[in-house]
Amino acid sequence: MSEFLPGMLGVFDSGLGGLTIAKAIRQRLPEYQLAYLGDTARLPYGNRSADLVYRFTTEAVGYLLSQGCPLVVVACNTASALALRRLQREWLPVHFPDRRVLGVIRPISEYVADASRGGRVGVVGTASTVGSGAFVREISGRNPRISVVQQACPLLVPFIEEGWGRRPETAKLVRDYVRPLQEAQVDTLVLGCTHYPMLRAEFAAAMGEHCFIPDPAAVVAEKLADYLARHPERELQISRGANHRYLVTEHTDRFAQLAGEWLGHPLTLEGVDLQP
Amino acid sequence: MSEFLPGMLGVFDSGLGGLTIAKAIRQRLPEYQLAYLGDTARLPYGNRSADLVYRFTTEAVGYLLSQGCPLVVVACNTASALALRRLQREWLPVHFPDRRVLGVIRPISEYVADASRGGRVGVVGTASTVGSGAFVREISGRNPRISVVQQACPLLVPFIEEGWGRRPETAKLVRDYVRPLQEAQVDTLVLGCTHYPMLRAEFAAAMGEHCFIPDPAAVVAEKLADYLARHPERELQISRGANHRYLVTEHTDRFAQLAGEWLGHPLTLEGVDLQP
Repeated sequence: MSEFLPGMLGVFDSGLGGLTIAKAIRQRLPEYQLAYLGDTARLPYGNRSADLVYRFTTEAVGYLLSQGCPLVVVACNTASALALRRLQREWLPVHFPDRRVLGVIRPISEYVADASRGGRVGVVGTASTVGSGAFVREISGRNPRISVVQQACPLLVPFIEEGWGRRPETAKLVRDYVRPLQEAQVDTLVLGCTHYPMLRAEFAAAMGEHCFIPDPAAVVAEKLADYLARHPERELQISRGANHRYLVTEHTDRFAQLAGEWLGHPLTLEGVDLQP
Repeated sequence: MSEFLPGMLGVFDSGLGGLTIAKAIRQRLPEYQLAYLGDTARLPYGNRSADLVYRFTTEAVGYLLSQGCPLVVVACNTASALALRRLQREWLPVHFPDRRVLGVIRPISEYVADASRGGRVGVVGTASTVGSGAFVREISGRNPRISVVQQACPLLVPFIEEGWGRRPETAKLVRDYVRPLQEAQVDTLVLGCTHYPMLRAEFAAAMGEHCFIPDPAAVVAEKLADYLARHPERELQISRGANHRYLVTEHTDRFAQLAGEWLGHPLTLEGVDLQP
């Protein structure tokens, strides 16, 4: 059977929030063909265990690699935090030793560790991402003098998916969640979930003007451009063109509409089955 | 391979809320051995499409039947609403023609259609349950003179799972959701999701004392007792004993704790893999 996504740059997310990452990559690196895969049938990952997220992530990433992607970016913070290191160490060398899988925790952590002026970084994310401690490990690994304060915000994804992004209840929820980060006087805030940039204005209002809130998608796209510049042999494997593909494991009209909202323009979603 | 759950009365739910149904069945029919299966790896079902809920439900029910359950109760309202009729008509006759699978929509609908004094019934449920129109069909089928008003309450499950059951935000959310049902002056309210009985007091306070809110678990258990009395040949197939089994597709400490809270006493959860 011929490959379905030959040479395409893979972007995997648990759902549709990762389209913000795909969009930023397209803007920063417009020459490459992208293949996006959202595991809409099994979202959300944010409360699931490390073992289950690992299984779901290897199945999804394995699909993209087996269909011809030379490189996959795991856009989902939860999957990057809970599954990526194990996937890179145990699974990838056995199944696809000539491919690469990158995540979002390390590039974002490197960026904020370098950007923080006061040495106090706040991280908001899903319960599983915060519980994994991945951002703390990576930021401290880059700069041990930075103190990292985390806050899980488990209800934000349901609020956003419910279309409550602009409601006062959501702004209040954000204010309640970030209170410990304000008290810790963090100077930089990591939006550690692909959904949260939708609430950037609410986070900015709650944290105040002295807190820097980088755009995670732009950071990931920039770090990916760095990576490809440093690995020309990998860069040459990626196909050129504008024929991007957007795949989902559950294909409904509602997801098609949401995807258009995330990406900023209409797109064609294709349903796929990850089971071999 | 020998059967894992020989003769046991199966109870399937998308997660752990169906333990309220299992508990009511144990209280009403204490002689039977129960096998509970919660699809914790793929919950929640409440926003998923009919096709996907059908696939997940046939996999889960198929597991219980293949392991020896002669009868399975689908405790999940979403699965009952979106998948049960198709499962009973297309799937069961092909795969397990000698078994029975019952749901919760029909027994609850029959009960409220008979109980409603004023002929106005309200139904609250997940987005998928409400979208399916299953309660409207079943209640109107039992008594065409009853008018049914539905309201999807998509954020209640996340609030309950987050442990916010007793917070004022949740009571306010319930008041906001039921406003159209109050305006329609419903005399009976169906709590059409296994999670909602946790918020029975909030619903009762919001609806006022003139609205009757039956306990869905007690209704389902009573209707099951009726069914078994009318089908003695089926009743005889169910094994006796107190060695109940509680199976989940994702097994974590958090789920074990939540399960104890739903059931009202500690229990041993066992992890299972539905893939053949």
